[in-house]
Amino acid sequence: MDRLTIVKVGGKVVEETDSLNALLDDFRKVSGNKLLVHGGGRAATALAERLGIETQMVDGRRITDLQTLEVVTMVYGGLVNKRIVAGLQARGCNALGLTGADLDIIRAHKRPVKDIDYGYAGDIENVNTRELRLLLDENIAPVVAPLTHDGNGLLLNTNADTIAAELAIEFSNYYKVFLFYCFEKRGVLADPEDDNSVLPELSETEFRQYQESGIISSGMIPKLTNGFKARRNGVQEVLITNPENFAKGRGTRLTLG
Amino acid sequence: MDRLTIVKVGGKVVEETDSLNALLDDFRKVSGNKLLVHGGGRAATALAERLGIETQMVDGRRITDLQTLEVVTMVYGGLVNKRIVAGLQARGCNALGLTGADLDIIRAHKRPVKDIDYGYAGDIENVNTRELRLLLDENIAPVVAPLTHDGNGLLLNTNADTIAAELAIEFSNYYKVFLFYCFEKRGVLADPEDDNSVLPELSETEFRQYQESGIISSGMIPKLTNGFKARRNGVQEVLITNPENFAKGRGTRLTLG
Repeated sequence: MDRLTIVKVGGKVVEETDSLNALLDDFRKVSGNKLLVHGGGRAATALAERLGIETQMVDGRRITDLQTLEVVTMVYGGLVNKRIVAGLQARGCNALGLTGADLDIIRAHKRPVKDIDYGYAGDIENVNTRELRLLLDENIAPVVAPLTHDGNGLLLNTNADTIAAELAIEFSNYYKVFLFYCFEKRGVLADPEDDNSVLPELSETEFRQYQESGIISSGMIPKLTNGFKARRNGVQEVLITNPENFAKGRGTRLTLG
Repeated sequence: MDRLTIVKVGGKVVEETDSLNALLDDFRKVSGNKLLVHGGGRAATALAERLGIETQMVDGRRITDLQTLEVVTMVYGGLVNKRIVAGLQARGCNALGLTGADLDIIRAHKRPVKDIDYGYAGDIENVNTRELRLLLDENIAPVVAPLTHDGNGLLLNTNADTIAAELAIEFSNYYKVFLFYCFEKRGVLADPEDDNSVLPELSETEFRQYQESGIISSGMIPKLTNGFKARRNGVQEVLITNPENFAKGRGTRLTLG
């Protein structure tokens, strides 16, 4: 099986020119098949503010009313995605920007209302990689924005960590998939106060222990939950790292068991 | 040679829900290879206004400063493009939204400053259809937003009529290309006051005569200039029509000579 590298980068990294350029330099150097998944939350919040639209977050998730859906469609699908694509083209990497609606790659349904109405937020139902695999064969690097669609014409705001994991799982039927979650820290920290306490490896059992003892903070939980799901479902390697270190393979490696 | 239908639709048609839905219904029915090019100027102007950015137009062309470039990237590449893509998916038409940066399909350079500084406006240099042809073979319908890139990381605002013509010309090396320019009227009018005076055919010589006598208005001139260029460069048929009539092949047919 060929190798496929999937890199997920958070909002801040792709929203500031210097860190974006550094990331694109590193991503360009990845050899073989590769795919980028990006966020863009800070830019979406900033545009919403300029338009006088209030941003509501619950546990780090955005409440997406219709106005907010327009904002994230513009920011994720337009501004951030196309900047990355143009930046990769400038580096000789032939990129293609997509949302989940493009090529019908990710179908989702509007999240059912339980305690909280998240509005136009998508829970993923189905991932289709057929056309993407043809494009990977042609040395194209897909760049995926955190938007999906419901198959009935509605776009849905969808968590980028989840998109990266679900793509990785589906692609693992065809490739040896290496999934890199890039965020601010160099990995999962044994001591949240000490940036040098990066755990080289973390198992799901250890994760639960750290979670119970409160060592792993709330922001990391969805990333790790998605990462372990990917590991359990055929993804070869999942690394929690930062944009400076992903290319070197340094960070916290998630292990089974 | 296989047939390829290229449909260019103006802003108003894709910006209002009812007319967009009607267009997508008709576009879906087009058999064989097809590609859509869209505008979105009114929505860009509306967003610019909400953001307090002044819109400046010279002869129907937008002066694109950096702030305006962000607006058109969000509106053309995000909002309008993804709405069309999601709408086509809902109709069982597998669409892929693109700007000129995606798959490196359209390279341009920043328009040189002569009398007027148009800012970040692109003049097309090169069209690449390699990957799009692979996708057309897979029954994918590309949906192209009026943005190009310069190959150095810069996106450029680019006239959608010109994009449609340049794509049609390049594709005519591989397909019999039928190019439809859809706008408000049913075709080119012999009498601007009479909507029933549609010319069934128009040659370039007649166009020049109508232009000199002032019968063809300024808004039509770029569309017709692009259309005749396409005809002279291998495009099988160019029809000036409206969204209701393009599928029926009714409108003004541009002829050589």
